[in-house]
Amino acid sequence: MTVFDDELQHLKEKLLRMGSLVEDAVKNSIIALVDRDNTLAQLVIENDRQVNTLDVEIDEESIRLIALRQPMATDLRFITMAMKITTDMERVGDLAVNIAERALELNTEPMLKPYIDIPKMRDIAQGMIRDALNAFVKKDKKLAMDVIMRDDEVDDLKHDVLQELAVFMAQDPTTVSRAMKISFVAQYLERIADHATNIAEMVIYFVDGKIIRHMAPPAEEK
Amino acid sequence: MTVFDDELQHLKEKLLRMGSLVEDAVKNSIIALVDRDNTLAQLVIENDRQVNTLDVEIDEESIRLIALRQPMATDLRFITMAMKITTDMERVGDLAVNIAERALELNTEPMLKPYIDIPKMRDIAQGMIRDALNAFVKKDKKLAMDVIMRDDEVDDLKHDVLQELAVFMAQDPTTVSRAMKISFVAQYLERIADHATNIAEMVIYFVDGKIIRHMAPPAEEK
Repeated sequence: MTVFDDELQHLKEKLLRMGSLVEDAVKNSIIALVDRDNTLAQLVIENDRQVNTLDVEIDEESIRLIALRQPMATDLRFITMAMKITTDMERVGDLAVNIAERALELNTEPMLKPYIDIPKMRDIAQGMIRDALNAFVKKDKKLAMDVIMRDDEVDDLKHDVLQELAVFMAQDPTTVSRAMKISFVAQYLERIADHATNIAEMVIYFVDGKIIRHMAPPAEEK
Repeated sequence: MTVFDDELQHLKEKLLRMGSLVEDAVKNSIIALVDRDNTLAQLVIENDRQVNTLDVEIDEESIRLIALRQPMATDLRFITMAMKITTDMERVGDLAVNIAERALELNTEPMLKPYIDIPKMRDIAQGMIRDALNAFVKKDKKLAMDVIMRDDEVDDLKHDVLQELAVFMAQDPTTVSRAMKISFVAQYLERIADHATNIAEMVIYFVDGKIIRHMAPPAEEK
C-alpha cells in the first residue's frame, strides 16, 4: 500500500461514516414521527452538525489529495465524484432534520392516523442511500442499477400517501394542518430517494465512464 | 493568455450559460402557471435537456482540465467548486420542470385565486440564482453574502402562501387538490432559493478558503 492508497482508503471511510450517520438520521427521524418521540427528534437535529463537519472535511481532503498527489484517471474520477456525492448526502441529512422538525410539530397535535406507507417509504429510501454509497465505494454497477430501479416504488408510495391525505382534508377541515405536514414528510422522503438515485447514477458514470445521468425524462427532482 | 486561461474562461462561460438557461426555466415555469400557458410549460420541460447536457459537459471538462493541467490552489478550487455548483443548478432546472408539470395539472381546473406571493417568490429566487453564479465567477464575496440574506424573504413568503392555502382547504373541500399543488410550487421555489444559498455559501468558502457553510442551524433544506 502506498501513502496515496492509504489516503484514498481514509477518504472512503469518511464517506462511509458520513453515509451511516445520514442513514441513522433518516431512520430516527421517522421513528421520532411514528413513536411521537420528541427526544429522538431533537437528537436528529443536533447530530446533523456531525454530518456537516464531515461534508466540509471530505471536500478539503479531496482538494488536498488532488493538489498533492495529482491522481490520474480512475482515482481522479473517484475523488471528484466523492465531492459531488457529499453534496447529495448533506442534503439528505438536512431532509432528515426537516422530518424531525415536522415530527416535533405533529407531536403537539392528536395523531391523524397510524402511519403505514411512510415507514415503508423510509425503509426503501434508507436502503437506497446505503446501497448507493456501497455501490460507489465498491464500484458495483449492478447494485447502483438496482438502487435506480427502486426509486419508482418510493414515488408510487408518495402518490398514495398524498391521495389519502387529500381525502382526509376534503372530509374534515380540522385535519388540514396535520395532513399538510405529513404530506411534506412524504415529499422529504421522496427527495431522499432522489438523492440516492443521483448518487447511483454518478456511480454508473464513474464505473463506465458512460453517462446515464439524465437519460430518463425528468420526474420529481430526479 | 495561456491555453489554460482560455480553457478556464470557457468553463466559466459554460457555467454562465447553464445559469441563464436555468434562470429562464424558473421564470417561464411561473409565467406558465400564472398565465395558464401550456405551451410555455411544455417548453420548460423540453428545454431541461439542454441544462442536463451542460451539466455533464462541465463535469467532463473539469475532470479533463484537472488531469491535463494539474492546476494548483485557486484554480483547482475553482474547478472543483464548479463541479459542485452544477449539481445545484441541475436540481434547479428539475424544480422548474416540476413547477411546469404542476402548472399543466392546475391548468385543467378552474383557477383557485390570482397568484400574488408566488410571483414575488419567483422574482427573489431567480435573482438569487443569477447573483450566486455571478458572485462565483467574479469571486464577489459581498454579492454572495447578499444572496444568503435574501433566503429568509423567500421562506417568509412560502410560510404566508402555505397559511393562506390551509385556510382555503379548511373552508372549501373542493379546493384541496388545487391548493396542494400550489403548495408544492411554493416549496419548489423555496428549494430553488436554497440551492442559490448553497452556491453562495460555496462562493464564500471559495474566496476565503473559510467555511461558512453549515454555520447557521439547519432550516428547510438549507
